[in-house]
Amino acid sequence: MITFEEAYKKVIHYRRNYGTETVGLLEATGRVLALDIKADRDFPPFDRSTKDGIAIAVEALDGEKNQLRIEGVLPAGNPRAELSDKNNCMEIMTGAVVPKGADTVVMYEDINIANGLATINQNPTRGQNIHVRGSDVNQGATVLYQDTKISGAEIGILAAVGVTQVVVKKLPSITLISTGNELVEVEETPLPHQIRKSNMQSLYAALREEGIVAQQVHLNDQSEDVREGLQKALQESDVLLLSGGVSKGKFDFIPLAMEELGVKKIFHKVLQRPGKPFWFGVHKATSTLIFSFPGNPVSTFANYHVYFKDWLKKSLGLPILGFDVILTESILANGTLTLFLGVKTFMEAGKLRASLVTENGSGDLMSLAKSDGFIRLAPRDTPYAIGEAVPFVPARNLIY
Amino acid sequence: MITFEEAYKKVIHYRRNYGTETVGLLEATGRVLALDIKADRDFPPFDRSTKDGIAIAVEALDGEKNQLRIEGVLPAGNPRAELSDKNNCMEIMTGAVVPKGADTVVMYEDINIANGLATINQNPTRGQNIHVRGSDVNQGATVLYQDTKISGAEIGILAAVGVTQVVVKKLPSITLISTGNELVEVEETPLPHQIRKSNMQSLYAALREEGIVAQQVHLNDQSEDVREGLQKALQESDVLLLSGGVSKGKFDFIPLAMEELGVKKIFHKVLQRPGKPFWFGVHKATSTLIFSFPGNPVSTFANYHVYFKDWLKKSLGLPILGFDVILTESILANGTLTLFLGVKTFMEAGKLRASLVTENGSGDLMSLAKSDGFIRLAPRDTPYAIGEAVPFVPARNLIY
Repeated sequence: MITFEEAYKKVIHYRRNYGTETVGLLEATGRVLALDIKADRDFPPFDRSTKDGIAIAVEALDGEKNQLRIEGVLPAGNPRAELSDKNNCMEIMTGAVVPKGADTVVMYEDINIANGLATINQNPTRGQNIHVRGSDVNQGATVLYQDTKISGAEIGILAAVGVTQVVVKKLPSITLISTGNELVEVEETPLPHQIRKSNMQSLYAALREEGIVAQQVHLNDQSEDVREGLQKALQESDVLLLSGGVSKGKFDFIPLAMEELGVKKIFHKVLQRPGKPFWFGVHKATSTLIFSFPGNPVSTFANYHVYFKDWLKKSLGLPILGFDVILTESILANGTLTLFLGVKTFMEAGKLRASLVTENGSGDLMSLAKSDGFIRLAPRDTPYAIGEAVPFVPARNLIY
Repeated sequence: MITFEEAYKKVIHYRRNYGTETVGLLEATGRVLALDIKADRDFPPFDRSTKDGIAIAVEALDGEKNQLRIEGVLPAGNPRAELSDKNNCMEIMTGAVVPKGADTVVMYEDINIANGLATINQNPTRGQNIHVRGSDVNQGATVLYQDTKISGAEIGILAAVGVTQVVVKKLPSITLISTGNELVEVEETPLPHQIRKSNMQSLYAALREEGIVAQQVHLNDQSEDVREGLQKALQESDVLLLSGGVSKGKFDFIPLAMEELGVKKIFHKVLQRPGKPFWFGVHKATSTLIFSFPGNPVSTFANYHVYFKDWLKKSLGLPILGFDVILTESILANGTLTLFLGVKTFMEAGKLRASLVTENGSGDLMSLAKSDGFIRLAPRDTPYAIGEAVPFVPARNLIY
């Protein structure tokens, strides 16, 4: 059996690059940019008024003069105008181009207008209320970098520089495979000895949040079914996520079928709880990766978030940020296993604190709704102390 | 002009309840539960083996006896069996029903099997490796509560209790309205005095992350266009989000058109930067709410996250959790305005720290890509200090 650190390192080692694809701008949210994006023009593209008021040449105000004749009105969206006389002014709207000859905008609140004359009540500063051409960014400068996850802010920038088709990282195709004769469909009424499928529904939903629409397959505990189903999935998908079927049971045909189909086991069993029987392998012919999680709900859910999510981030070129939480209770984690314990988090004065969720072992699906994620406790003899910061694996969106 | 606190309170006061709708299980991710969900049976529904091994009656081992005859094999998915003799045992697979007469499971690792006999090497504890019926939750107990945001964990639970159709909170229908003759479509090459639409693309993307697919409308600076466009949007949508068009400019027809169409202004202008000209109103006839943000990208983006997001949470019954970040620099925020400043965050030993993003005023769209959200600084004479925790408005998914 290998340690958590070894297992994690091996999984990350098998990161993949699935190439790129092009999607429409409004479909790009949540995807990862595959190319740097450059400004197609200066931003702002012209000297732009940031207020409604009058555009003036500040030199017109020298001495006692504080009244300027209004030459006209400049709405946003008009081509650049020009002051015919630097002693005059033009009314100007927010977003409009500052006219040639003007260098300053005085807002309506600071002037009076009567008889075609603007009287300035407050001495303006040269350049005020003008967003100068190129002051945010110059044409050709990089405005967004490759490997950026696209959210609302990035969509605005892509729109501003005219990117209607966005080159993004391609997502892996994934098949979710549930196994076990005890499982029935969600819409069925199970017999007393049966249960409904739930692990794969959980993972389907989690993958949807990553923008991945997974295939779902169920394999019964019959060796031909397992073999055929696996073979098809290995050909069709970049990644298989399995739940159940890799323990020592007499009806766990999966390890054998994997071997026969040319899947190389990278490791089986990790010194961790939950999720000890985690099995990870690669199909030699297709390079398809197989994450085979134990059948218990908490094991599958924790393993997915601990291993698969970081593998996916790494494969998409995203950074793996480490998160920590501060313990509100002391916890003993001696022995040989790395523990993943469900916690509820709460933020207090910028500190993210976590308290343990009571759960009834790794079969306790219901406990997952109470938890925001898992703390990761490496085995050690001294208890983890109140106030100690420990690594945290989020399992839901916490801050948003 | 009203303060940020007053404006925020008024916006939250106008929270709405848009009722409920029913969606398929796999479409429910990200939505908010409208009903409590109860267990349709005990969980687990039967005494379930958590290991592969043998099921025994622990009393069979009294005295020196540690060898039991194997009566048969129990795969998962078989109806409950019965030990014909309490001195015998049955092989049992993970997930299978513990047979009548047995009370303990000993895993394969702790036994030897030869000639139809299992020899137990380690003294078992009565009840070990059995996940007892109803020990997670009893039939009829509430497993998920109304007003819960649905993520992968909740989908698993809904599946387990057989909910294929989920009653969720209905989302408001939203029209995004951009205004201003200087704006052209993203696919166009703007003339020197024009710019591409970007604010509404940002908000469209942000709303998509909330599960809302907004309508988009552009209104030119012509009074009939504005009036007709607004009237249609007021009839069709629960909420209008506008950008631009509520300042003092001569071509800002929106305030007048709003008034003529029977929209009641709740407030206009807030003591805040960016976003001072924020206008908020309600249509008397249709109850449609109007969030009219200033045209500058940073203003619109900050206002959306500060006001609209919390309004939406409140309208869906979600809690508004306050987040804070710890400052890494001292900041002066004297004067009369509440400031919203873009920050980059980073987590360190459970503390979420934030440093200011350099930006070039509220027109600086490019700065938004560098920022994770906004700190909110109420005006005060003493500077905000390094290490101080201040309120934080996230604008992207930070921990996940």
